[in-house]
Amino acid sequence: MRQGHQTWVFPSKPVIVASAAIGGPFEAKGPLAEDFDILHGDLMLGQDSWEKAEKVLLEEACDKAVAKAGLQKEDIHFLLAGDLMNQIISASFSARTLAIPFLGVFGACSTAMESLALGSLIVDSQSADYVVAATCSHNASAEKQYRYPTEYGSQKPPTAQWTVTGAGAAVVGSKGSGLRVTAATIGRIVDMGLSDPFNMGAAMAPAALSTIESHFRDMQLPHNHYDLVVTGDLGRVGHSILCELLPKHNVFVPLERYLDCGMLIYGDNPDVWSGGSGCGCVATVAYGHLLRRMREGEWKRILIIATGALLSPISYQQGESIPCIAHAVAIEAEQGGMGA
Amino acid sequence: MRQGHQTWVFPSKPVIVASAAIGGPFEAKGPLAEDFDILHGDLMLGQDSWEKAEKVLLEEACDKAVAKAGLQKEDIHFLLAGDLMNQIISASFSARTLAIPFLGVFGACSTAMESLALGSLIVDSQSADYVVAATCSHNASAEKQYRYPTEYGSQKPPTAQWTVTGAGAAVVGSKGSGLRVTAATIGRIVDMGLSDPFNMGAAMAPAALSTIESHFRDMQLPHNHYDLVVTGDLGRVGHSILCELLPKHNVFVPLERYLDCGMLIYGDNPDVWSGGSGCGCVATVAYGHLLRRMREGEWKRILIIATGALLSPISYQQGESIPCIAHAVAIEAEQGGMGA
Repeated sequence: MRQGHQTWVFPSKPVIVASAAIGGPFEAKGPLAEDFDILHGDLMLGQDSWEKAEKVLLEEACDKAVAKAGLQKEDIHFLLAGDLMNQIISASFSARTLAIPFLGVFGACSTAMESLALGSLIVDSQSADYVVAATCSHNASAEKQYRYPTEYGSQKPPTAQWTVTGAGAAVVGSKGSGLRVTAATIGRIVDMGLSDPFNMGAAMAPAALSTIESHFRDMQLPHNHYDLVVTGDLGRVGHSILCELLPKHNVFVPLERYLDCGMLIYGDNPDVWSGGSGCGCVATVAYGHLLRRMREGEWKRILIIATGALLSPISYQQGESIPCIAHAVAIEAEQGGMGA
Repeated sequence: MRQGHQTWVFPSKPVIVASAAIGGPFEAKGPLAEDFDILHGDLMLGQDSWEKAEKVLLEEACDKAVAKAGLQKEDIHFLLAGDLMNQIISASFSARTLAIPFLGVFGACSTAMESLALGSLIVDSQSADYVVAATCSHNASAEKQYRYPTEYGSQKPPTAQWTVTGAGAAVVGSKGSGLRVTAATIGRIVDMGLSDPFNMGAAMAPAALSTIESHFRDMQLPHNHYDLVVTGDLGRVGHSILCELLPKHNVFVPLERYLDCGMLIYGDNPDVWSGGSGCGCVATVAYGHLLRRMREGEWKRILIIATGALLSPISYQQGESIPCIAHAVAIEAEQGGMGA
């Protein structure tokens, strides 16, 4: 492998056999509602804590994806999962319920593509027949852990983002038909010195740029190769910054083909400030909405770049800036119109 | 791959080109002091917070391992790292300093072998020439985050363990000579219903049993195949439980060849109750002490089983029991007496 190369090309093109997205009551009112497999009317999901509700979202996403794949849990060799909670308890406790050998991963909101990239590598190297890659977040558990108690009713600036209540899961396998994972680019940390946790989009945009640049350089692809380049979750603020950064760095991705999951999930709703965020944002938008449109033949090749802000409340309180990262996964349709 | 199979066999046998261990002042007084590359007399490492001190431990371990391998940071394709801090900030901030493409992993104290297993898979599948697998922990940052403020002077029961201040790193590569990673077994969650965070050894012993059983079953190896089977970090309590559990489950690992990293690092010191723990325990004992003894020809084949208790203070406060996991990595010497 070349020095500086950070992209894996998967010769066997692992198949996304099925995927699933679960959402909460606020997501049910958004423009992508029809792309969720299950939408909950109760933010607590019948549980007695936000954290337990979040765990149920993840369990449901995994169960649903495995069922849609026509498989049993016993067929899945490994679960790769992570979330925003301290010690990724949503993922670990879900792994207890699912009883699948478990690899915990963490990259904040980039976890969705980190787990899909690693899972695809495991399948491509014949180290598993099937894996599940899954992530989740819950608005109330994230507010409680990262920010002020919701009851304070504290004001947020327009650069803030709304953590998605949702979970997404993909079953990746060595056989079957469906969309295929062709490559993945693992990001390096980019930290431009920003330290405002209410402006993650601006902090994360340069990390997305770095990974997109590396992907096209490593793959030696023309910048218009993909029908869609989609970041998750920069929001409106980060999206507009990246739209400026890309041409400045001579990356001429056609901007009309560039979308952001944080902008898609809630549409123009001004209540979410700059847009959606959280591990559940890119996971539900990608595994629900985007893959559905690919399966319907709308796009043949997409590149999903999940961005993560790797701060903690402690690092912020100690005056640290926000290290950011982005991982990209390329997904291609073999031909138009495929099932699951 | 067979259903239920959870072991990767690495045909290319990736090489542990070099490894390094960094410790704190308490570790410097322990019986393994000579096996550390750097020992700090100051628990703060000249930083202004425990968390920043912990990050320096990890950075030093990575730097030292890369230097001992005769490599530059630019030669390392990926860093796989994790730690006990919320949002694994020690790993993420170290990845910022090191500027190596970064995969964050979390499995509490099992992170050391999770990162080595995944790193070896990445090298074995020719998806990198070199990776670094690294983990760390810091006694004071862990006490602050997981337990009571140290200033309370709260009493601990004899089943408690002492979080190691230390970091370990291994450079794994596709070429070169040295010890070789031959296989890895990824654990599934085992939760026997225990919920006492001051008795992790008892909670984790059944997870270690599960992974050891799976390893020998998947590999179809005789139970006396390894010269050493070593858990990390069950401590005295967990070690004695596992010594009972193994023969009861018809796993006849010779008990005189079974050691625990949590017992090795501080010897008989009664101040550490049941022994050492933390992501830095198995990492420093394995990458410092154990690999040195292998390089000197004392053992040809060892199996390291790193155990993790996947609780968080929130999950404990909400009455949850402790989900535990263990990941195992098999390391073999090609022939007696090799360098680095």
